Amino acid sequence: MDPHTAAPSDPAAWARRAADLDAADPLAGLRSRFLLPDGVVYLDGNSLGALPAAVPAALEDAVHRQWGTDLIRSWNANAWWDAPLRIGDTLGRLVGADPGQVVCGDSTSVQIFNILTAAARLRPGRDLLLTDPDHFPTDQYLAASVARLLGLTVRGVPIADLPAALAADGDRVAVAAYAPVDYRTGELSDMAALTAAVHAAGAVVCWDLCHAAGAIPVELDAIGADFAVGCGYKYLSGGPGAPAFAYVAARHHDAFDHAVTGWHGHADPFAMHGTYTPASGIARARIGTPPMLSMLALEAALTAFDGVDMADVRAKSLSLTGFFLDCADALLAGTGFTAATPREPARRGSQAALRHADAYPLVQALADRGIIGDMREPDILRFGFNALYVTHADAFAAVAALREITADGSYTDARYAVRAAVT
Amino acid sequence: MDPHTAAPSDPAAWARRAADLDAADPLAGLRSRFLLPDGVVYLDGNSLGALPAAVPAALEDAVHRQWGTDLIRSWNANAWWDAPLRIGDTLGRLVGADPGQVVCGDSTSVQIFNILTAAARLRPGRDLLLTDPDHFPTDQYLAASVARLLGLTVRGVPIADLPAALAADGDRVAVAAYAPVDYRTGELSDMAALTAAVHAAGAVVCWDLCHAAGAIPVELDAIGADFAVGCGYKYLSGGPGAPAFAYVAARHHDAFDHAVTGWHGHADPFAMHGTYTPASGIARARIGTPPMLSMLALEAALTAFDGVDMADVRAKSLSLTGFFLDCADALLAGTGFTAATPREPARRGSQAALRHADAYPLVQALADRGIIGDMREPDILRFGFNALYVTHADAFAAVAALREITADGSYTDARYAVRAAVT
Repeated sequence: MDPHTAAPSDPAAWARRAADLDAADPLAGLRSRFLLPDGVVYLDGNSLGALPAAVPAALEDAVHRQWGTDLIRSWNANAWWDAPLRIGDTLGRLVGADPGQVVCGDSTSVQIFNILTAAARLRPGRDLLLTDPDHFPTDQYLAASVARLLGLTVRGVPIADLPAALAADGDRVAVAAYAPVDYRTGELSDMAALTAAVHAAGAVVCWDLCHAAGAIPVELDAIGADFAVGCGYKYLSGGPGAPAFAYVAARHHDAFDHAVTGWHGHADPFAMHGTYTPASGIARARIGTPPMLSMLALEAALTAFDGVDMADVRAKSLSLTGFFLDCADALLAGTGFTAATPREPARRGSQAALRHADAYPLVQALADRGIIGDMREPDILRFGFNALYVTHADAFAAVAALREITADGSYTDARYAVRAAVT
Repeated sequence: MDPHTAAPSDPAAWARRAADLDAADPLAGLRSRFLLPDGVVYLDGNSLGALPAAVPAALEDAVHRQWGTDLIRSWNANAWWDAPLRIGDTLGRLVGADPGQVVCGDSTSVQIFNILTAAARLRPGRDLLLTDPDHFPTDQYLAASVARLLGLTVRGVPIADLPAALAADGDRVAVAAYAPVDYRTGELSDMAALTAAVHAAGAVVCWDLCHAAGAIPVELDAIGADFAVGCGYKYLSGGPGAPAFAYVAARHHDAFDHAVTGWHGHADPFAMHGTYTPASGIARARIGTPPMLSMLALEAALTAFDGVDMADVRAKSLSLTGFFLDCADALLAGTGFTAATPREPARRGSQAALRHADAYPLVQALADRGIIGDMREPDILRFGFNALYVTHADAFAAVAALREITADGSYTDARYAVRAAVT
């Protein structure tokens, strides 16, 4: 909390501070690249990004002209065939990857599975796959599946303990599969240092960028990352279930030996050969026919990043999360909240998480006031800050509302305790 | 060719015959459920189905209201979470599956991979995976990958020889992976008899329904099929790269042990457990977050089948393909064409394929006249007949155009020989 500007218990002062920060925000104009509903403060873009303004027209064109009129000819005429690698290159620019190393398509889960098999096969004779026991569940499930198929053992090592684990047993480690940003707490780890530690042990690293891509600067090439998988629908705002992406460093292309050898990754797919000969380059990581409507929506969504410097995104993101945490400190003191997100900017992704024993009803009561966050078991309220469209005023509104509903107890209403099917 | 109606060399007589058949077509009204472009005869719905009229409004709602306005709340409020099983049940009705046995999502390639692993694990100790050396390439590639991961051997056995191979080595066979309709020739095999033969050997069968679902009546439950995978974008007209689907017979649900254990298939996905406990029922075949825009487009597309009896679809399909083959016999005699599709209705899917040494330029020259088919190596011209929107007049137009361009030699123009990136 900045002592020069803090006003510990006066909400109005925090509201003015938010307005001042927003007025000085060099990225403020980017908000108009999104179609945000009236009356909603949207702090769940780390789960599903808001609708970019460029998407509806792009989809209408994809449906009426490309599919409806050009029909099958669109694979050539509208370059559908090229889309996974073309969009992959666009995604690559956002995560520090030179062209030709990123493919777009399939779900994050499928990409994780496929990439992990290829990664593990690069290190035959090593028997350990390290992953975080607090990693997002699908990553853990798929690591277990890959380990079972390839005869490896999964060892759960918290990311903070990864260097020590590598120092102790590094010569047994084939793959380390981790996320730079913890999906619950928003804690950010040092990708460069951890990548170097994995390499020092002779292993390869698979980074899960779901909460990093579009949220923080990522420099896959510069840090020498081996593999990465990311999500299209969180900070990249590509739409619900938007295709994921996979990064394979160019030096691994020739040895990339994956599990889901679909025909789009063949060297000559339309020759219809009966045996699989992988394409050269990142094209061999293509799998099957991608969901073009969802993929073209993602491509249009990514134009929201046109001309945007991720360093500026990072600066604004830190301002937003820092402001939120300071404001929560000041206005929520004594109401049962504790911050789950580290205070140090270098250890913070682009979300702020608070712990509270009543996290679930609190999030529901907030939603009833048009303030959308989410919760993660057992006690975390998550607020995602997409610097392209979230304002400091949004951050203030969330804290102010939490202050009100904890003061008046309205969140304890029984209706807020009813669990929805999807939380 | 029906001798009572044939007019061997008079195109006008065939045109009248087409008009008569279309006038008497009880399904003619279904064509208005599709938005077909003017000036196009579309006979490539076996590769990408035409745009159903219900899709644009459904997608606009999905984008603006569901994504743009309801945002993350749509997982509950608009039942996104239920979509893979809800749409799965709709698909199930088209392939003879009772509710609760079909899941929608991911690409055909991913589903084939995932289903084959689960199928093979049902028969430990057996070492053979049988598949057709003329099966669609992705099926062969993924069979090879699954076999490598699980220590099986793939044996290529043409579908016609499958009963004999099962009789000889059946006790070694874990899985037989076949398609009822050959993707090149359109030849239809007897699913019921082959399923019974696979079962008699103690093995399980995986049917690839890409060229069957929506094209012919399929009765998965009635024939006792074990597994099936199908495609959403061919005869189901779900849009480019529409999500695929997988059928797992209810009797296999408890033992279903697949490879791509994504978090959506967990028994309690939002509890975020670190270990995978599969959901009961078909839900365990869910993988990751599906591409909702593409999936909702597919759901809207399937309304084109509302109230449609697949027996009527079959009758019209056979009328279309039979008429096309007869007409081609009559009007293309001596021009180098031979039929690749069997004449017997019981052995014909819903496409007609002709062989010609100049298949590629012929298909290009046809496209230049607004008649869209496709070709498959080395010499096949494929024409797909979707009974919901193709007419006998369309079939006549294709044959008449082939007659003209072979008569005047215009297809030999050099520009038609230039291969596009995607053929």
